[in-house]
Amino acid sequence: MKSYSAELLAVGSEILLGNIVNTDSQYIAQELSTLGINVYFQTVVGDNPERLRSAVEIAASRSDIIITTGGLGPTSDDLTKETVAACFGKKLVFFPEEAEKIKAMFRRLGKMTENNLRQAMLPEGCTVLENTCGTAPGCAFRAEGKLVIMLPGPPRECKPMFDKAVRPILSELYGGCLVSRNVRVFGLGESAMEAALYDLILNSTNPTVAPYAKTGEAMLRVTARAETPEEAYAMTEPVIRQIYDTLPDCIYGVDCDSLEQRALELMLEKGLTFSAAESCTGGLVSKRVTDVAGSSGAFLGSVVSYSNDVKVNVLGVDPNDLASYGAVSEPVALQMARGARRVTGSDISVGITGIAGPASDGSDKPVGLVFVALDSDSGAFCRRLELGTFGGREMIRERSANTAFDMVIRLLTGRPVIQKL
Amino acid sequence: MKSYSAELLAVGSEILLGNIVNTDSQYIAQELSTLGINVYFQTVVGDNPERLRSAVEIAASRSDIIITTGGLGPTSDDLTKETVAACFGKKLVFFPEEAEKIKAMFRRLGKMTENNLRQAMLPEGCTVLENTCGTAPGCAFRAEGKLVIMLPGPPRECKPMFDKAVRPILSELYGGCLVSRNVRVFGLGESAMEAALYDLILNSTNPTVAPYAKTGEAMLRVTARAETPEEAYAMTEPVIRQIYDTLPDCIYGVDCDSLEQRALELMLEKGLTFSAAESCTGGLVSKRVTDVAGSSGAFLGSVVSYSNDVKVNVLGVDPNDLASYGAVSEPVALQMARGARRVTGSDISVGITGIAGPASDGSDKPVGLVFVALDSDSGAFCRRLELGTFGGREMIRERSANTAFDMVIRLLTGRPVIQKL
Repeated sequence: MKSYSAELLAVGSEILLGNIVNTDSQYIAQELSTLGINVYFQTVVGDNPERLRSAVEIAASRSDIIITTGGLGPTSDDLTKETVAACFGKKLVFFPEEAEKIKAMFRRLGKMTENNLRQAMLPEGCTVLENTCGTAPGCAFRAEGKLVIMLPGPPRECKPMFDKAVRPILSELYGGCLVSRNVRVFGLGESAMEAALYDLILNSTNPTVAPYAKTGEAMLRVTARAETPEEAYAMTEPVIRQIYDTLPDCIYGVDCDSLEQRALELMLEKGLTFSAAESCTGGLVSKRVTDVAGSSGAFLGSVVSYSNDVKVNVLGVDPNDLASYGAVSEPVALQMARGARRVTGSDISVGITGIAGPASDGSDKPVGLVFVALDSDSGAFCRRLELGTFGGREMIRERSANTAFDMVIRLLTGRPVIQKL
Repeated sequence: MKSYSAELLAVGSEILLGNIVNTDSQYIAQELSTLGINVYFQTVVGDNPERLRSAVEIAASRSDIIITTGGLGPTSDDLTKETVAACFGKKLVFFPEEAEKIKAMFRRLGKMTENNLRQAMLPEGCTVLENTCGTAPGCAFRAEGKLVIMLPGPPRECKPMFDKAVRPILSELYGGCLVSRNVRVFGLGESAMEAALYDLILNSTNPTVAPYAKTGEAMLRVTARAETPEEAYAMTEPVIRQIYDTLPDCIYGVDCDSLEQRALELMLEKGLTFSAAESCTGGLVSKRVTDVAGSSGAFLGSVVSYSNDVKVNVLGVDPNDLASYGAVSEPVALQMARGARRVTGSDISVGITGIAGPASDGSDKPVGLVFVALDSDSGAFCRRLELGTFGGREMIRERSANTAFDMVIRLLTGRPVIQKL
């Protein structure tokens, strides 16, 4: 099977100067990889014809397919078509049909200025790519053994044009297709994961296995190439089984988005409700649960008990225990979880108390000490974390929330809730 | 004054394949432009030594400064240091001090695998850039007339390293020094702000005035260049006064980090305490307040009342009002705020109820309808927002939280709490 390489060339000073994020390139890169087309380089260049020309020449020297985004608009700094066409010895010619479409669009939109008709000037012999969400058409042509595709810059025009007009052109290049699957790992760092799977990662070709780091968790991506999606999917199965066998205690899901999404999914499946009592995480567990659309099917609410008074008066934590053990302690975490269940009526709840820093709480307890408790009809559990100051306040809070979701997932998948980290 | 050009080189298959967005390049490009350094090209390349080498050679042929991000980690596909150093004829050598720092960090974090010490291998003669948020140090060296800087990929490590370690190196390139001040704007979009200040932005040279968009807010950066920081700072003053005069009602702070940080600062100054009752924001207000170190001086706690039972039982919302007006209504928002004050005993509280989508709540109310209430001894107020579906669930939640903080800031700075948006 011939393998193709593509280069993405984003044209525009707004991206170059960091005024906007280059989401077009991200989108297209992701789509190309599912089409089995290799992306080896992405480049961003400003609205400057010399530098654009040099970037196109470099791209043409190392890639089969060049996809530009941006610079197709009506204003004088929109130079992509002229410049790219000239690189391949092509002239721009007037496409009367496109001019009619632009005029018709402006009959609905309002006054058209003369420069809008520049958008009907396109490289001779090109395929016109219809813009269903804006006025500037895209175009594609073949020249000097390369496939050149130009798309508009605004993501709301670029992405639909890619989906509707570019994908069919690119699919034709190829027989096969790619399937990627993400194995999500918690409780093991990226380097420990890679050490455990060293041979598999190093020797993988089809499927490939690649490690990724996430905030406080890790991920493996298994990617197979085959004639059909079904075949590619089937090829990933034994590899994923092998990963499960090597890391039996650390995989919380395959092809799920996040710990909170997996925890919610399990609770929704089992018809269980959830709540939280949060001290050091200060609402982060609740925020992350409610980031997931549909969370109201399981999540009832939370109490963010930053002050001791709220712990006692709302959650019913015993003031004597607060005095004897301190707010950051196992008994308080357990009572917070129980209190959240009581006030919300949920089936499962978590209670989190710890020292996120930068300063300690006046006791001799270290920054990074966190107790995460889980309360349910199956019993109450508490995990003690010593996260240190590494990564600061934000990381301590994220990892504490991760642990809470991990404990819920373990409870609902029958794995030991308190595992050695 | 000599003018410098920089090229950003993001290394990593995750960006190349579109798994993550290249926010590092955006951030650095933006910062370089305030430093007066031109960025003409940005490139993304994968974890492949030959292609990385070729990208570095191209960058060196056209730019004075090369800044790489990514590929400094401990795993075998982290090849940036080896490859970039080799392009400039430099070897990697072992930095024992860095190794000690890494070991010390892992004494707190847990088991270190041998490959973590690869992070202490750095180009000979380089300046080590400390990583305050992770294990991989960055580095900078000069060779063949170029300044080469390598930063870690994760944005939470890359951005602080740029701010603390790279900015001073780049400032030295120019004789004088730069002072940047950020004027924070809420309640006015970026384009409206730009229109109001068009002449000032267009004609500014020293200080320069540049507009930036943030999630649901806007910012102006005023940057002055002078011999001393004091002199540069003084030059920004009249410009900032002019901006205040033009946008009197929309500026919530200068050189503050965020709405929540400004709101907290004001409450701490006045010795006032804060709490929240959150429905659609689901803990986001609390999470954002407790992101700020020292928030426990003012923040007592919150109730995340996702279910109606929690609204009634914990916050004391009248079930008749819930039935007559619905959960997303002004009376419920006001009662939620009052309830949060009652259960936490705080001086000020906010209550937020709305429809974050993607689906509506079964009533005929539209997605994006949000009520934000504020309750204090000075009275109770409620703002009605119609945010539409633009930006989706996340944007609706962020903008609702922004509004809550804006109302607190207005209350404490004597501006009308309910302003026309």
